[in-house]
Amino acid sequence: MTQFSLAGPLQKDTAFVRDLPLCRLLLMNDSRFPWCLLVPRLEGLREIHELAEEDQRQLLVESSRLSRAMLEIFSAGKMNIAALGNIVPQLHVHHVLRRESDSAWPGPVWGHGVAEPYPLERMQQIVAELKARC
Amino acid sequence: MTQFSLAGPLQKDTAFVRDLPLCRLLLMNDSRFPWCLLVPRLEGLREIHELAEEDQRQLLVESSRLSRAMLEIFSAGKMNIAALGNIVPQLHVHHVLRRESDSAWPGPVWGHGVAEPYPLERMQQIVAELKARC
Repeated sequence: MTQFSLAGPLQKDTAFVRDLPLCRLLLMNDSRFPWCLLVPRLEGLREIHELAEEDQRQLLVESSRLSRAMLEIFSAGKMNIAALGNIVPQLHVHHVLRRESDSAWPGPVWGHGVAEPYPLERMQQIVAELKARC
Repeated sequence: MTQFSLAGPLQKDTAFVRDLPLCRLLLMNDSRFPWCLLVPRLEGLREIHELAEEDQRQLLVESSRLSRAMLEIFSAGKMNIAALGNIVPQLHVHHVLRRESDSAWPGPVWGHGVAEPYPLERMQQIVAELKARC
């Protein structure tokens, strides 16, 4: 295993939350949607099925914990979980909390409009709340 | 556990492939994209994290097998895997094989254009190939 490095676009668009046993947890800097990424800290991965079975299990453990944390922090909604990678090939799993009132509902968030960055203080607050729960 | 029943829209838009240990495997009747669904055969589920840990593992076993099968049958591409459920709440996990030449690339397939049904014979052929590998 070579050293893990985060793809440029993932780094640019996110705030670091913490490293979990398998994944780096990131918050997308887009205040339109509560939106996190889990990025397995292994080099050269593109697809979930390329992960060893044990790592797939760990991915779901971290994913489920993150989903519950987001539902707690943001008071309910519908989770959208997706591994796409059409634009940024490095395996990353989107976790987006959707509401009927959001601007993209019921369509997908990917490719929808333009990100609206958080005010710094609000972003730090969410990062702290995610850190406390994941 | 009450008896499993498939949500109407999922039934209408798909062909039955087979019941796996956890999920019903379905082929979307849309020839624009190789596109399958895994639907856990448990009543009342909306989110992956609501599955018991053992069922989450089984979901990933079936998902990985399906991904490999699709990559074999359709000769490579990029997997898009997603649990959305904004329109049909019953938990179902999309598996879509994407190519740079498809009409929605690199955007998501959900909400993109109108499904183009398969000719019956082609659909039966794909169902048979999926059955043989999943």
